[in-house]
Amino acid sequence: MVRREVDVPTLVQRARGGEARSVARLISLVEDASPRLREVSALLVGHAGRAHVVGITGSPGVGKSTTTSALVTRMRRRGHRVGVLAVDPTSPFSGGALLGDRVRMQEHATDVDVYIRSMATRGHLGGLSWAVPQAVRVLDAAGCDVVVVETVGVGQSEVDVAGLADTTIVLLAPGMGDGIQAAKAGVLEIGDLFVVNKADRDGADQVARDLRSMVSRTDAGAWRRPVLKAVASSGEGVDEVAAAVEEHREHLASTGALAERRRRRARDEIETIAVTGLRESLADVGGDARLDGLADDVLAGRTDPYRAADALLERAVGGGAPASAPGRPGL
Amino acid sequence: MVRREVDVPTLVQRARGGEARSVARLISLVEDASPRLREVSALLVGHAGRAHVVGITGSPGVGKSTTTSALVTRMRRRGHRVGVLAVDPTSPFSGGALLGDRVRMQEHATDVDVYIRSMATRGHLGGLSWAVPQAVRVLDAAGCDVVVVETVGVGQSEVDVAGLADTTIVLLAPGMGDGIQAAKAGVLEIGDLFVVNKADRDGADQVARDLRSMVSRTDAGAWRRPVLKAVASSGEGVDEVAAAVEEHREHLASTGALAERRRRRARDEIETIAVTGLRESLADVGGDARLDGLADDVLAGRTDPYRAADALLERAVGGGAPASAPGRPGL
Repeated sequence: MVRREVDVPTLVQRARGGEARSVARLISLVEDASPRLREVSALLVGHAGRAHVVGITGSPGVGKSTTTSALVTRMRRRGHRVGVLAVDPTSPFSGGALLGDRVRMQEHATDVDVYIRSMATRGHLGGLSWAVPQAVRVLDAAGCDVVVVETVGVGQSEVDVAGLADTTIVLLAPGMGDGIQAAKAGVLEIGDLFVVNKADRDGADQVARDLRSMVSRTDAGAWRRPVLKAVASSGEGVDEVAAAVEEHREHLASTGALAERRRRRARDEIETIAVTGLRESLADVGGDARLDGLADDVLAGRTDPYRAADALLERAVGGGAPASAPGRPGL
Repeated sequence: MVRREVDVPTLVQRARGGEARSVARLISLVEDASPRLREVSALLVGHAGRAHVVGITGSPGVGKSTTTSALVTRMRRRGHRVGVLAVDPTSPFSGGALLGDRVRMQEHATDVDVYIRSMATRGHLGGLSWAVPQAVRVLDAAGCDVVVVETVGVGQSEVDVAGLADTTIVLLAPGMGDGIQAAKAGVLEIGDLFVVNKADRDGADQVARDLRSMVSRTDAGAWRRPVLKAVASSGEGVDEVAAAVEEHREHLASTGALAERRRRRARDEIETIAVTGLRESLADVGGDARLDGLADDVLAGRTDPYRAADALLERAVGGGAPASAPGRPGL
């Protein structure tokens, strides 16, 4: 089947005009790490940086999609154009929205000022941290006032979402594990605001109380991180969440913290791209066979993984290979 | 305070004799990415590869520590020496066991043939994927027959645990989200066996049924992945879990799959060390100021992150810098 390809400059121009099909096409280009990714990125220079990026994270089952949908409703009432990226950082197989999410987002399906997109990382190099910032930039350039990035929390993924959002909402729910577990999951450090969802269930008050106590102990700086309760499925408490998001945005803007966060984000993005490039060059030069041979040497007790890594790097970057620090002698 | 340092060869010799203090010291060396990490690694060559590595993963609150503790009890009854690494891949702050885990592991505290250690990744480069394989190797060389690595699931971390384990147990519990959520969390792909813990609670049968149906649809190869029910806190069903772990080990050994898994693991480890070395060299050469400048250029719309990454790489690896593929023109 032959499909007529529209060139990238035209796609970017149309996306900037808000055309959903061109937005979709551009996100596909960045998601697939297509050769035209660089062209997309270069053409977006100067057209992004206006949108407020909101991250929503939490364990499976806390109600992320429902909460996102309810928040989008409030943002639309304020006249905002909204982009939603639902990111699944774990499954290399899904490649699109799962049925459950589509159902929960249904009410916005016909709203031309809401753009909803599921992204799977498909296991390629760089993963979430590679594709999502580019997709955010596409939505930003397309005129979205707010871009919501929803992702499963816990593990490396939530560090990523906190890294790319201006405001990070951590969602919890009663019955999903106690306070110690919340602390263990590392969510305390990354949230700008906390929402105990399913607040009509037993134990919600206790979760909120425990969380408040933990959050207040770790608060740093001028922003007192709120702990709110909500029932996203009925809309209860969601106005307050939307208001807190707005307040945090104003706080960031007025204190200069926004510029600092975005600079860190740009740094992370550049570094990720550079490291991904280096990894690719390892694969290019040494090839799989070389790495297999080194792995066999390690397994057979002929060498250790550090010396094997040195051998791999020598091939990849030539004579002046950086030693695989940390841990190199004399460091 | 001056502490008398024992040299690394002596530590390795003592650890191989099973001395817990030397094991602890060696794991601290690898955890901190100490300069002596390479020396430790070189001295362990030929002394590891015997232990069966079991990964246990699941969302916060499913009962990982309790299940691990109950499994350790069964393994001890079979006369195995057991090492446990409780890994928290998310918090850069904890640096040691949380109280809850210590309490749950209490019953093994006085058993000299059980070595329990918490590891936090402290946010340094390479993180979990860097330090944990080395710590597993230390425990292996110290004569552990089984090394259990327990880590919070969901997100990148569980991919890691599956990558380093011979046998991966995925733990679920009723009330933690339905089947769609389990699929979304990407746990189906990584489990060699599944345990529905807290099976005395409402909904456990339903979770097990849904899971069985999903698991059987995605089974590939000769190993039919079991879905078991357990109440780890009372010990109910844990014998069956221990038996299934043993069966899986035998399956791996008899089919040659064990060698294949370990080869993949060695490959991943070598690659991670190499990439971490390259990242360090980026930081060394360009320095933070260089990266800050490039970040500012991106934010001000003077360049895009791909060209910025190229500029960073040119400094780090000299004239012959690999382009930051994928996405480079002409790829």
